[in-house]
Amino acid sequence: LGVKCYPRVKDIPGEVDLAVILVPPASSIGLVRECTEKGIRAIIVVGQGLADGDDEGSRLQREIIRVANDGGARVLGPNTFGAGNAFRNFNSAFVPMDMHRIPIGVICQTGMFMSGLPDFPMVGKGIDLGNTGDIDFSDGLEYFEDDPEVKVILMYIEGINDGRRFLNVARRVAHKKPIIALKGGRSEGTAHVTRSHTGNLAGRDEVYAAVFKQCGVIQANGEEEFNDLSKAFINLPLMRGRDVGIITITGGGGILAADACYRHGLRLAELSPESIERMKAIAPEWQSFANPADIWPPSRIAGHPLGEVLHTAIDSMLADSNIDGLLVIMPGTTPTDVEADPPDAHMSLIGTLVEAFKLTQRYDKPAVLWCYGTDTAATVSLIEKSGRILYYPTMDRAANVLARLNERYQFLNCRDDG
Amino acid sequence: LGVKCYPRVKDIPGEVDLAVILVPPASSIGLVRECTEKGIRAIIVVGQGLADGDDEGSRLQREIIRVANDGGARVLGPNTFGAGNAFRNFNSAFVPMDMHRIPIGVICQTGMFMSGLPDFPMVGKGIDLGNTGDIDFSDGLEYFEDDPEVKVILMYIEGINDGRRFLNVARRVAHKKPIIALKGGRSEGTAHVTRSHTGNLAGRDEVYAAVFKQCGVIQANGEEEFNDLSKAFINLPLMRGRDVGIITITGGGGILAADACYRHGLRLAELSPESIERMKAIAPEWQSFANPADIWPPSRIAGHPLGEVLHTAIDSMLADSNIDGLLVIMPGTTPTDVEADPPDAHMSLIGTLVEAFKLTQRYDKPAVLWCYGTDTAATVSLIEKSGRILYYPTMDRAANVLARLNERYQFLNCRDDG
Repeated sequence: LGVKCYPRVKDIPGEVDLAVILVPPASSIGLVRECTEKGIRAIIVVGQGLADGDDEGSRLQREIIRVANDGGARVLGPNTFGAGNAFRNFNSAFVPMDMHRIPIGVICQTGMFMSGLPDFPMVGKGIDLGNTGDIDFSDGLEYFEDDPEVKVILMYIEGINDGRRFLNVARRVAHKKPIIALKGGRSEGTAHVTRSHTGNLAGRDEVYAAVFKQCGVIQANGEEEFNDLSKAFINLPLMRGRDVGIITITGGGGILAADACYRHGLRLAELSPESIERMKAIAPEWQSFANPADIWPPSRIAGHPLGEVLHTAIDSMLADSNIDGLLVIMPGTTPTDVEADPPDAHMSLIGTLVEAFKLTQRYDKPAVLWCYGTDTAATVSLIEKSGRILYYPTMDRAANVLARLNERYQFLNCRDDG
Repeated sequence: LGVKCYPRVKDIPGEVDLAVILVPPASSIGLVRECTEKGIRAIIVVGQGLADGDDEGSRLQREIIRVANDGGARVLGPNTFGAGNAFRNFNSAFVPMDMHRIPIGVICQTGMFMSGLPDFPMVGKGIDLGNTGDIDFSDGLEYFEDDPEVKVILMYIEGINDGRRFLNVARRVAHKKPIIALKGGRSEGTAHVTRSHTGNLAGRDEVYAAVFKQCGVIQANGEEEFNDLSKAFINLPLMRGRDVGIITITGGGGILAADACYRHGLRLAELSPESIERMKAIAPEWQSFANPADIWPPSRIAGHPLGEVLHTAIDSMLADSNIDGLLVIMPGTTPTDVEADPPDAHMSLIGTLVEAFKLTQRYDKPAVLWCYGTDTAATVSLIEKSGRILYYPTMDRAANVLARLNERYQFLNCRDDG
């Protein structure tokens, strides 16, 4: 491929920053020794079948690490794709990584996440720890700790070697940037499986949960939370309390959204008298205005233009000191009402929404959106471009995001118990 | 609009099947009486501000229903879009319903679901009960009970009027086709909100949960389950036991999928000696083959073509009597390996998959798929076209679907306790 090659490591002229070793396990030890003799301090061992294989593999892995460490080198892996960095156009893997210049640092024990998740390129910078023979989660956290290009750290953990060090490092780093952890091998039936994947003992789930809580590490319950929470922490302000205001154009949707909020430990805010007054002024007389705020009657019965009603609702809820964050439910396309809505009504409605949501910045409150209808893509993309409100594909995920924004606020604003 | 109109109902010549009344509440009563005098037996009252409004509204609603019933008519609503039927090109609503000729019947207390959900046109036939002043869920269930065009019934429930009748009807219908219910107003903080939406008391969540369980009604925990479960019940066989086989090309993904299975009450199946033998024959020597079956080492270390490995894994798991259903994890695109995979390798891989999944029919077992990677749309669409394996966007949703397919199997195959 036009790249100059050398028969032996010691034949390479000048200094070498990194060695990536792709030979069968048994041949690795000699190569690792050659690398340390050349003065290489960073080594990625890619091969599988070590601690993830049989007992002989475990013995070999210990030996590889010992030889490297004795020679002053650290090892990433074995059983790893290695590392990738979109900002430096670097990738050590033998498969393409889906990297983008996004402020997300990934530390994981599976190469899967280097490919990203559906609709979510998750790697700005990525470290696949593989079997975690030497370099561990704490090293990864310290690497990203003061990196201004990394704003959120995602971890997929099967097992942690040095719990005490992790506690200290994670707690320190969590005060600087959000750390989101997904634990594999949580159930009794799966804990043993991690042994054959990365040679790690998964440990008791409740111990990990307690450690994460103590450190301020946010524990994800599914891989989709990597996407949901990254987006939120990068784009939205934290939520100071647990009281949510819901604005909806469908009564049933508002009730389901409120159910989702309670499921995640949030509450329906009691609207201030001022908010109620502003909304009642445009509602039909029989409507007992409350939270969730159903804006169908003001617009479709009392006949006020939908954009105006939406603006009033958003504006009064954001200004309402009883409300810490907003959950908004909109149709993917405007409910058609030929006379009231000219053909471009939907576009102008989205414009109104985007304008109104600029207020979230002034009041420093997060806002999330859920849309119904089969054709939501265009609306969602236009609204999200404003960067002031984020769309989530289910009401449950929207409510979960608000709850996590509050969880982090509480962590950062409570006295440190350490 | 070129449609002939009459000043009064009695001026219309011939028989009238249905009246749709769109006047302010107070004027409805006189019109309802005119309709019954004309012999109309089916009336949809669209107007809002009745039991969903104030006390005067509640009184008016009772009066509307009384007048209709006394005249021999039944009322759908008030506060409703009415009904829609894609098979008959009929829709009573003043907004477009997103209807398709799909075998799904919807009975709900909000118009929202008539617009469908993101990527899910949910209405083949739809009944919006609105305030449920007269026609109730039991009527809707009986309407769909023997309709061959309806294979799955979806319900959004805020409150049920006649619990005893519902128990009897739902239990009978649930033996004929799956009924999926989403309950609104489940949490203590939201139960009162349904009063102002449809005038219904939401009732205690645990009472509803017990009733659903007793009737064999499947309770959804979020609106996305309408989509997830409809797809599954229409396309997949039920799952006879709780033991899942997982096939994965990523070890970490297999562990997370297994965690999701346990979260939903399923178990990792113990592979039969025959399955293990067939898989070990193509795996590297150090791999202790088990469930989840990690097919990366057989294809990427032992060097067998990925398609062949996949076929062996799927074939042996489907034939394995220890396994009741499959969860498969694939990349959205093939991990590139230039020499091993020619450019069309991904297409031929999908072809292999689709072929292999035809075996699910022979063994009468359900199979679900999750894909990682940012670019999954093309793969998913090709694989789903086969109709033998369904894709779900998160591992949790994939595992939940298998659990619900087993729940329904248990309901249908247990002695009826009624």
